[in-house]
Amino acid sequence: MTEKIVFTRGVPPPEAFPTEQMGECFDAAVRGDAATVLQYGQQRGYAPLRRQLAEEYGVSETEILVGNGSLQLQDLVASYLSGPGTVVYTEQPSYDRAIKTFRRRAAQAIGIPLEEDGISVDRLEAALEREVPAFVYLVPDFQNPAGATLSLEKRRRIVELAVEHDFWVIEDVPYRKLRYEGEDLPLLREIDASRVITMSSFSKLLSPGIRVGFMIAPEPLIDAVTALGEDTYLAPVLPTQAAVAEFMGRGLLGPNIERLKELYTPRWKTMSDAVRRELPDAQAFIPGGGFFVSVMLPEDANTTNLVGRGKDAGLVLTPGAAFFADPGDGEAVPGDRFVRLPFCAVTPGQIEEGVKRLASLL
Amino acid sequence: MTEKIVFTRGVPPPEAFPTEQMGECFDAAVRGDAATVLQYGQQRGYAPLRRQLAEEYGVSETEILVGNGSLQLQDLVASYLSGPGTVVYTEQPSYDRAIKTFRRRAAQAIGIPLEEDGISVDRLEAALEREVPAFVYLVPDFQNPAGATLSLEKRRRIVELAVEHDFWVIEDVPYRKLRYEGEDLPLLREIDASRVITMSSFSKLLSPGIRVGFMIAPEPLIDAVTALGEDTYLAPVLPTQAAVAEFMGRGLLGPNIERLKELYTPRWKTMSDAVRRELPDAQAFIPGGGFFVSVMLPEDANTTNLVGRGKDAGLVLTPGAAFFADPGDGEAVPGDRFVRLPFCAVTPGQIEEGVKRLASLL
Repeated sequence: MTEKIVFTRGVPPPEAFPTEQMGECFDAAVRGDAATVLQYGQQRGYAPLRRQLAEEYGVSETEILVGNGSLQLQDLVASYLSGPGTVVYTEQPSYDRAIKTFRRRAAQAIGIPLEEDGISVDRLEAALEREVPAFVYLVPDFQNPAGATLSLEKRRRIVELAVEHDFWVIEDVPYRKLRYEGEDLPLLREIDASRVITMSSFSKLLSPGIRVGFMIAPEPLIDAVTALGEDTYLAPVLPTQAAVAEFMGRGLLGPNIERLKELYTPRWKTMSDAVRRELPDAQAFIPGGGFFVSVMLPEDANTTNLVGRGKDAGLVLTPGAAFFADPGDGEAVPGDRFVRLPFCAVTPGQIEEGVKRLASLL
Repeated sequence: MTEKIVFTRGVPPPEAFPTEQMGECFDAAVRGDAATVLQYGQQRGYAPLRRQLAEEYGVSETEILVGNGSLQLQDLVASYLSGPGTVVYTEQPSYDRAIKTFRRRAAQAIGIPLEEDGISVDRLEAALEREVPAFVYLVPDFQNPAGATLSLEKRRRIVELAVEHDFWVIEDVPYRKLRYEGEDLPLLREIDASRVITMSSFSKLLSPGIRVGFMIAPEPLIDAVTALGEDTYLAPVLPTQAAVAEFMGRGLLGPNIERLKELYTPRWKTMSDAVRRELPDAQAFIPGGGFFVSVMLPEDANTTNLVGRGKDAGLVLTPGAAFFADPGDGEAVPGDRFVRLPFCAVTPGQIEEGVKRLASLL
């Protein structure tokens, strides 16, 4: 019987979790500050964690909101900034759940084509001539789903455009600290923070189940989204945030990230090599970090019912179309030729075999 | 200097939290099931907790959804069941945050007058003749803010009306297990579950900061709200739910509730006696349990700027108007004569002194 190989889950494998340390940190965090951690309150997030994040990002504590995962914060931000009369722009392809969230809140989510060095700025500028969106949503580092990283030149131009045309840029950076080669580029907020909302979380660095995500933005926006959060869920879940603060306070986060890089680097390298070797005709996005390699298959590839034929061959794939927002100007959306290849939760052996199976289907 | 007495917070006092046990349960829950608890998933809530709740309420696990606090679930339910074209009915007065949530989702939240034995069924029937709501929201046991408990006869009639007129009844029962005298009445769902959504949480029995709330409803509604929750926050926070499951699995919840009743009973008794003695002309709601006594002050009482004058006298009160939805048929809303008196987070001495101060202001 063929071993099933799962190329769908952009999640950490169980061996990524620092379980023993997390158990201790929960215990210490609850006992150490029960009157706050077990009570209603801290609507902006657990104060010691906000202090740690403020220090790390060089911002004021009033510019930080910690909530129940960054998708929840994206939903609140989208409901605050957009509405039935507005459009939002995303990279094309983009994070499927973000597209879904924005579609529920805005009139339309329009995709701007993604290139190897990030969103097409020419296409973004052309779109801005037609309509200024409520916000542009970007995953600038090791993008989900494609893996692309936004170049420095494009980062600079995008924050200029945001100021010039008066729209917000959401930079969602959950993968940023998982770099396996090369040097960090500056955050968009480090170039010009005035129109930038930075979002991130501890899902990829610590645990997704704790649902601790955060946003950094100018204080008036933080105030408004905090009020909306309070009306929606009263107060954030606090023991999880306190456990993260404890974990960071003990100096465990840095070493944990190093451990994760050691775990993921061979998987990343295996996936990158296998894609180059087995799918030489595809346009491959090979990132310097994160969770995803991806390929745009050639136009003459046999992509008919690719997900179904993959399943029959013991290869589980995500339908590419889920990652595509509405096209900006009537062009075709190549969803059926796009394949996301998450590599963190599969072993090097599974990666080799899985990419071979994919190549054999085309 | 006069000691400030706070009659605003409907929250447990810090001494109510089983801190040491909670610390242990978090540790055990995370270490014992890390691959689930620290991972994405369990969109309907942590499976072992859902099993425990299903057994307790005599329902199928598919009829239960556990989320990040019951207000978050109310927001999801309201967004699913109501919309710009619908109205919802609440008791008048009702839980201020629920009213606010419903107002954001529905066209209008209309209050049906509350009597000592719960919502006025005559007035509800009259309102139903005018318009059938998406749902009626009730706190049948020790109501927030008034303290009233819905009579058996009214419970029977309301579920009949729900079936006859085809609307949902939300019964929100977070205080139900904190009964200091008398016998439980059946849940509305125990009379006829077909149109009933039961909501509750562990905020008053264990800790509000963990934000573990749940709903019980027919499976198709649970499925729909689960999907909406997944689109909103991806997955619920799991370590907190797992800690509750561990706490219950160790048999600690029953003894903790008994301990809370011992802590709260003298406070409840002191508040009830003080209100009867110091405010003999007010219409008092004296409940058999829960967190709140309340009074409707006489029409000739001096309620002008009551909250402001209370503050000057060292007495912190919630403005009564916050608890009132829109009136059903143009009548005046007596918000300025309504005073909620939460007694769990204040000592008997503070209660005696606070009620005396209130009486002296009128």
